[in-house]
Amino acid sequence: MGPLVIKKTHKVQCRSPRLLLFIYFVDLLPAKNGEEPTMQFLLEVVEILTNYIRKTFDRSTKVLDFHHPHQLLEGMEGFNLELSDQPESLEQILVDCRDSLKYGVRTGHPRFFNQLSTGLDIVGLAGEWLTSTANTNMFTYEIAPVFVLMEQLTLKKMREIIGWPDGEGDGIFSPGGAISNMYSVMIARYKFFPEVKTKGMAAAPRLILFTSELSHYSIKKASAALGFGTENLILLNTDERGRVIPADLEAKVIEAKQKGYVPIYVNATAGTTVYGAFDPINEIADICEKYGMWLHVDGAWGGGLLMSRKHRHKLNGVERANSVTWNPHKMMGVPLQCSAILVRERGILQGCNSMCAGYLFQPDKQYDVTYDTGDKAIQCGRHVDIFKFWLMWKAKGTVGFEQHIDKCLDLSAYLYNKIKHREGFEMVFNGEPQHTNVCFWYIPPSLRGMPDGEERRKRLHKVAPKIKAMMMESGTTMVGYQPQGDKVNFFRMVISNAAATRSDIDFLIEEIERLGHDL
Amino acid sequence: MGPLVIKKTHKVQCRSPRLLLFIYFVDLLPAKNGEEPTMQFLLEVVEILTNYIRKTFDRSTKVLDFHHPHQLLEGMEGFNLELSDQPESLEQILVDCRDSLKYGVRTGHPRFFNQLSTGLDIVGLAGEWLTSTANTNMFTYEIAPVFVLMEQLTLKKMREIIGWPDGEGDGIFSPGGAISNMYSVMIARYKFFPEVKTKGMAAAPRLILFTSELSHYSIKKASAALGFGTENLILLNTDERGRVIPADLEAKVIEAKQKGYVPIYVNATAGTTVYGAFDPINEIADICEKYGMWLHVDGAWGGGLLMSRKHRHKLNGVERANSVTWNPHKMMGVPLQCSAILVRERGILQGCNSMCAGYLFQPDKQYDVTYDTGDKAIQCGRHVDIFKFWLMWKAKGTVGFEQHIDKCLDLSAYLYNKIKHREGFEMVFNGEPQHTNVCFWYIPPSLRGMPDGEERRKRLHKVAPKIKAMMMESGTTMVGYQPQGDKVNFFRMVISNAAATRSDIDFLIEEIERLGHDL
Repeated sequence: MGPLVIKKTHKVQCRSPRLLLFIYFVDLLPAKNGEEPTMQFLLEVVEILTNYIRKTFDRSTKVLDFHHPHQLLEGMEGFNLELSDQPESLEQILVDCRDSLKYGVRTGHPRFFNQLSTGLDIVGLAGEWLTSTANTNMFTYEIAPVFVLMEQLTLKKMREIIGWPDGEGDGIFSPGGAISNMYSVMIARYKFFPEVKTKGMAAAPRLILFTSELSHYSIKKASAALGFGTENLILLNTDERGRVIPADLEAKVIEAKQKGYVPIYVNATAGTTVYGAFDPINEIADICEKYGMWLHVDGAWGGGLLMSRKHRHKLNGVERANSVTWNPHKMMGVPLQCSAILVRERGILQGCNSMCAGYLFQPDKQYDVTYDTGDKAIQCGRHVDIFKFWLMWKAKGTVGFEQHIDKCLDLSAYLYNKIKHREGFEMVFNGEPQHTNVCFWYIPPSLRGMPDGEERRKRLHKVAPKIKAMMMESGTTMVGYQPQGDKVNFFRMVISNAAATRSDIDFLIEEIERLGHDL
Repeated sequence: MGPLVIKKTHKVQCRSPRLLLFIYFVDLLPAKNGEEPTMQFLLEVVEILTNYIRKTFDRSTKVLDFHHPHQLLEGMEGFNLELSDQPESLEQILVDCRDSLKYGVRTGHPRFFNQLSTGLDIVGLAGEWLTSTANTNMFTYEIAPVFVLMEQLTLKKMREIIGWPDGEGDGIFSPGGAISNMYSVMIARYKFFPEVKTKGMAAAPRLILFTSELSHYSIKKASAALGFGTENLILLNTDERGRVIPADLEAKVIEAKQKGYVPIYVNATAGTTVYGAFDPINEIADICEKYGMWLHVDGAWGGGLLMSRKHRHKLNGVERANSVTWNPHKMMGVPLQCSAILVRERGILQGCNSMCAGYLFQPDKQYDVTYDTGDKAIQCGRHVDIFKFWLMWKAKGTVGFEQHIDKCLDLSAYLYNKIKHREGFEMVFNGEPQHTNVCFWYIPPSLRGMPDGEERRKRLHKVAPKIKAMMMESGTTMVGYQPQGDKVNFFRMVISNAAATRSDIDFLIEEIERLGHDL
């Protein structure tokens, strides 16, 4: 513990918060006369944040200032992660805030392409600041009246956009797509075997779930967690573009039934994580109807395309789904976390999850308690994820989301066209991507003449990790890579950042060439 | 859709944001020349928020301005919840922000006692603002280096405080106590029957879970969701103070075993939701050891007492638990959401949940990938819940949390002593409460002479809801009520708000008397 010494060094470096030098946590509200230091402290924090925001959008700023775990743990010039028994001054707290941002990653930077969630939406951010200030909980109308209604109206709007008649149905915002997908499996089970809720899986025959071999791993996590077992999740073959082959689904359903098992659930992915592929929902829906199975559409990544008249056809058939996962925090640029599970049948979410806890959901309240949402959830306390999304929708309008989606897809088409015939680049699959995912290898000059074979594969497998490591060290941009099936490590470029432009795409490609040229 | 008209009325009323009148979302960053409007907009938002904060701590402000759902849905003077196709001006967005707060509930108000999570911690709030600005995801060190390390260090510190040797073990922050408790059941199952992960519940015998009849309903939700079935969750009898009777546990374990079932898991609650009771952990641990069962301690509410040298004895034996839920967002005043599941055995969380998704958790990264936490979680994306907590710990020190806990418990003792012999008040159970929960009936004069019996019970049952409704209409304070077992509706007072003082306790009691006098 050396914070005292550290504090002294930092005092000199700090410009503005001189007045907070001898002020501590206990001097803030609710302390007597706490208003002035509270306002001063918060405004200092806001100055740090607004400076960060300004720089994030400035391309001359680095995306990150990379350090290894051991470096950060050892302490960086007065940035000490260890917790201590005694309080630090508010001045040091401001230094801690500045340093926490300094050594982090600017996910809103125009050249950050590493995840499906990128960008820093200013209105969404304001919404999140307000949400934290309101600091309430979604379980009852009683303590979150405005947010509960916003959630209800927004979910209805999303169901209308999916295409369910009059936007009827149900839904809830959950802490991420994995939990939303978990809900879908739980509800499907409840639909067919409601007695599992009370009697457990022993009350049901051997239940079988289906999902694409390229689907998100959360379906597998759900099958393990909910007691199905991962072996009872059957993986479906995909075509060269990563889309489920419907005939394979039907064959595997028949096979399972012949073994005496009971197929109950199919997940169709709308926008796979790596390829951005859209499974053919209508053909899968036909099979689900034929065999009486629940159809879930995991649109965590691709659901946003429903907002675009130009691209929503990629989810044709989604209106036939029984449930849909849709994460506004991905393609729609809403700050993390914001994920919805939408359900066509009203009441089933409540039926599946309700436990009627008397201390929370009193029936004798003075208002219409059907607005209390808590008993639908597997959570008790639930963070307010709706406000930022609602506020963005107000500020952009439906058309604003559409423009954002169209722009991102245009940019990915630009990238695709730029590299599909470029020397040193090789596409992982042929044809224009369905989503903003563009998957490619960079082939350094040293590998270009090499015949295909184990040696080339082995060397190519190391190229993307090496480039990525150099990229992070130099802090100029970030893009993801991974192997898939028999394909060695390749780059997966995704675009969901409203700040990205063609020049940033150009930069990425040139940077890959610069860093990878001598490998 | 009449937002155009509404906008016009509001333009006149708005004081400061005149300059944002003709400015829209598209004018903000990343727009060219977007920096100035962005900063102006954010500072206007901050002004709204700081005004809200100031008023929240002012006792002359109402706790809430209650409206029924239909009133808010119909629209309140220009506050229109409906989403539209076209964008609204940023000026209207500011109005929306102001109104969203206006019609909400001030959970940080010194007289808000309605939930286990109350208060508005200024440093925690600043931490949350920073978290939203950083807008990243906890699954990898790659994109959340600082936050991932903070989580690791903080969890270790929490394990040290629990009393596990050298703070060894594992853990993760999850979106709330219900999910943390769900983790505990999953891990216990994995410990004894790891094959359930792949083969499902069919691979295990009939597994039995135990929890108090007064425990949180999330244990029941977990037993339903994870495929055990709520019938295989055995509820344990409690004494008059709401604590599990260990002999009842042992008898029920023996009974289950005699039926051929396999008892695997016991949840001991440290701080029940209504009574604030602490189950006798050591005696329960003895039984768990004897019969080879997993011991989980649900300290979502009571875990905070571990920070107090004076009160931590109430959790004696917690160091013998295999897993512990502890929500800093409750008793420790951290903004929502902040809940930890802590596990004594290293590696089991990973073993239970890992699916090794190649696109996220590449083994060939340039840094030590053991810091990537994502595969331990049932979530994929995971909100950064650690920073606000870490920052508060820095600002208060361990001693600051201790002082807060001690102060809240002192206040509840003050309340208990004030009303235990006061005319018109009747305690739900005898003796000083173990936690800050004080449970009592208010008996209006009209019921005071009445003999005990069905008629009195029936009338008393209606008293708390009526007082609560009037309280909310007048907006002066908020406190929860509920029935429990054969006990008709009673008030449950809880104190976790750092802003509450004796005068607020006095106010609450007088307000109950004022509102309930003529019932």
